[in-house]
Amino acid sequence: MKAKVRILDMYSGRYSVFINEKEAKKAKLHPDDLVKIEAGKKTVYGSVVVSNLVKEGEIGISRDILQLHSFSEGEAVMVTPSGTPESVRYIKKKMHGEKLRKVEIEAIIKDIVDRKLRDIEISSFVTSLEINGLDMDEIAALTIAMAETGDMLDIDRKPIMDVHSIGGVPGNKTNILVVPIVAAAGLTIPKTSSRAITSAAGTADVVEVFAEVSFSLDEIKRIVEKIGACMVWGGALNLAPADDITIKAERALSIDPTGLMLASIMSKKYAMGSQYVLIDIPTGKGVKVETVDQARALSRDFIELGRRLGQYVEVAITYGGQPIGHTVGPALEAREALSALMTGRGPGSLIEKATGLAGILLEMGGVAPAGMGKKMAREILESGKAWDKMKEIIEEQGGNPDIKPEEIPVGDKTYTFTAPTSGYITGIDNRAITGIARAAGAPEDKGAGIELYVKVGEKVKEGDPLFTIRAESEARLDQAIVFARRTEPIRIEGMVLQRIGNI
Amino acid sequence: MKAKVRILDMYSGRYSVFINEKEAKKAKLHPDDLVKIEAGKKTVYGSVVVSNLVKEGEIGISRDILQLHSFSEGEAVMVTPSGTPESVRYIKKKMHGEKLRKVEIEAIIKDIVDRKLRDIEISSFVTSLEINGLDMDEIAALTIAMAETGDMLDIDRKPIMDVHSIGGVPGNKTNILVVPIVAAAGLTIPKTSSRAITSAAGTADVVEVFAEVSFSLDEIKRIVEKIGACMVWGGALNLAPADDITIKAERALSIDPTGLMLASIMSKKYAMGSQYVLIDIPTGKGVKVETVDQARALSRDFIELGRRLGQYVEVAITYGGQPIGHTVGPALEAREALSALMTGRGPGSLIEKATGLAGILLEMGGVAPAGMGKKMAREILESGKAWDKMKEIIEEQGGNPDIKPEEIPVGDKTYTFTAPTSGYITGIDNRAITGIARAAGAPEDKGAGIELYVKVGEKVKEGDPLFTIRAESEARLDQAIVFARRTEPIRIEGMVLQRIGNI
Repeated sequence: MKAKVRILDMYSGRYSVFINEKEAKKAKLHPDDLVKIEAGKKTVYGSVVVSNLVKEGEIGISRDILQLHSFSEGEAVMVTPSGTPESVRYIKKKMHGEKLRKVEIEAIIKDIVDRKLRDIEISSFVTSLEINGLDMDEIAALTIAMAETGDMLDIDRKPIMDVHSIGGVPGNKTNILVVPIVAAAGLTIPKTSSRAITSAAGTADVVEVFAEVSFSLDEIKRIVEKIGACMVWGGALNLAPADDITIKAERALSIDPTGLMLASIMSKKYAMGSQYVLIDIPTGKGVKVETVDQARALSRDFIELGRRLGQYVEVAITYGGQPIGHTVGPALEAREALSALMTGRGPGSLIEKATGLAGILLEMGGVAPAGMGKKMAREILESGKAWDKMKEIIEEQGGNPDIKPEEIPVGDKTYTFTAPTSGYITGIDNRAITGIARAAGAPEDKGAGIELYVKVGEKVKEGDPLFTIRAESEARLDQAIVFARRTEPIRIEGMVLQRIGNI
Repeated sequence: MKAKVRILDMYSGRYSVFINEKEAKKAKLHPDDLVKIEAGKKTVYGSVVVSNLVKEGEIGISRDILQLHSFSEGEAVMVTPSGTPESVRYIKKKMHGEKLRKVEIEAIIKDIVDRKLRDIEISSFVTSLEINGLDMDEIAALTIAMAETGDMLDIDRKPIMDVHSIGGVPGNKTNILVVPIVAAAGLTIPKTSSRAITSAAGTADVVEVFAEVSFSLDEIKRIVEKIGACMVWGGALNLAPADDITIKAERALSIDPTGLMLASIMSKKYAMGSQYVLIDIPTGKGVKVETVDQARALSRDFIELGRRLGQYVEVAITYGGQPIGHTVGPALEAREALSALMTGRGPGSLIEKATGLAGILLEMGGVAPAGMGKKMAREILESGKAWDKMKEIIEEQGGNPDIKPEEIPVGDKTYTFTAPTSGYITGIDNRAITGIARAAGAPEDKGAGIELYVKVGEKVKEGDPLFTIRAESEARLDQAIVFARRTEPIRIEGMVLQRIGNI
């Protein structure tokens, strides 16, 4: 049928198109049927909603669709029912335990990006991957297909470095130090990162406190070719868009099939043109990868996948058993990271990890001799060169390079927990710390979070402060206090855990 | 948040609720988030669409929701974000190959019916069942949970008989004869059936040609208690509603996990209170179950599941290698079935199968001695008693009991295919026959379909008519002719299948 576009003011989280009841009856279209909408060279797929909000001869298009395809009000389009996509057969192959060929994986990813596959099919694909897995041939094909169905960056500087942390450790502002150190050494490092999904602050959330993070690929190219680095939000870009779609199903089911995780991370590096990639795998209780053995197996997969993509990959297995540095939450982490860059000093856990990772990148990029990377990284940090580079990044990304870390506003509603007993700190619970900071409002409330005064192994006396919660509202502060009381964020040896009557 | 209901004129095929952009921002709700909507004892779950079609303080509700819950315009409701349902953990257990406990299966089915689980989770469940299967304990729990989350029929007549065909054979109007034969013998048989999904006519589509098929459970109870039988559309009832929801995912993926199929069929029998159930499994090329061995394995599962549900189940493995009778399509099949009931005569394939199945039911119900059921069924059919019973059914279901089969209108646009050569009919392709009838407009166009003049094994001469396509419009007729030419619905031994140039 022919129809005129009517733009509907809604975001449905999916591709919905609205068709009048009579029109739907005539065209034998039912709710949730897949239709193809064409205008000139533009093609888009959508799920039918039958509704008299639109008239006969109109097709209502939700804003979700407009984000990717620019239809205009009243534009003439052709609407045709679309059968089951061929790629559903390949999903069934994987369901039945068969290995997929490269062209089959490409077809699935293309149909995901084109929205021909919807929640039902995508969830079935993700579930089949969780159960039946992917071998390295399949993972490599998946990674390349994910990258090539999105935009790719081509920077006129070589070599291109990149660093990625698997995540899960609260307070992990490490890469905010690593990027300027590496760039100050003359290497190119166009760093994209994510906002928090389940954590209290993603790298993009922290950088956003003192600079813009949403840029187009052209703007990124210009910035990076000028100063050798950027620290931007990957979500603003069309990098490996299939990943953003599959991740919705993974999150709903709280699964993260290994092959898909590898493809997800590495497709974005591939799309950014990265040649030397350092993967940080924190291990410890309460993070994604709990044991060193698991981390080793995963490392081998990353390295092999990189080899197939023409990337040189190294992996750093790091300690992730407790938060990094002394702060958790966007503004607090921004203060701590900027202060460390400015002074060359900071918490051991932050400085050691940042210079360690940066050092590996300096050696990978050939600017430091083997074994000398960390020393060089520390020198760059202490000399103020990393801070100079950071100021360039802040300026290019529209922030104020004369920023004073201590002037960054943080939540003014505070509550401090003190040690109920004397003893050694024997454990800090990553998940509880993240939960408290989120209850206090992070990452949406930039000033919300936690300041930690102790680390595992330190000795405290009864009444010593353990940590302060910061929030932007009393209500959020109260929520965080209640959450902190329900959990056991900090464990002190010798503390009575529970008193059950007086028997 | 508190909100007033605003009813939106749309069917989206899912549970959508519309929230104003500002309101969503305040409440930190995002597109596709799950929310709980409460008013008094009514609770419903929906997926957020962010839209300025509704104002602040309003919640827009689509008609899909109203079909199950009666909210009124302006009604005050409470809207709260809903976290991940507990049952997602059980879906993950099945994903990881573990056996599910009864309470876990119950939780999944309850959440499906309550719409707390959406396409992503349901598809993952169905995919996990396809890959990892269910054992008989799980299937029995699933069947009972599916039945008990819907309405149940309690008829004050015993014993309750039922018959179900696994389907896939074109022209299968058999049960339209079986039901009145069985009821004429004094047994009770409240038959619910479906409309066509992929076939050219479901039993409900055929019955609808001469009677109403949509009734409430109370109306069915009244009819069946009065005359011992009914032939209604199950889709109008709230029988095992979880099944209708999972089937959407199964259809999109074109999978039908065995455990789910068993539960789907038997949960509806259980909800109807059936005590004696006959399952017809047609076997042959182009139907669901192709070999007798597969049919035997499936039979054992049906019988064992029935035993656990307190039902006595028998299975008839029948020949499904070609269409039954001479007609395919709602009106044509109605003519053939009613004529057979009225005259006691008809095509061998129809009469033999109908009296065979009815005979088994007569023996199961204890009104015919062992081995004598088929003979008794034939006597009931030939004596006109089955036709008398059918007239009662038609009258109770609001049709005209004085109907003349030949007066039922059929499509007047016709085209007849003739034999291109002489020889024996060696094959009739079920899938092609169904495809032609659907291309001609069946089941929506009641008068569309096929009249078949030949059966496998018969001898034809060049030019003899093979089949006539009937349609209600020239356009549909043309479509069906094109489809028939592309396929090979009828194969004649000795026929040249393809001529490739003159080499």
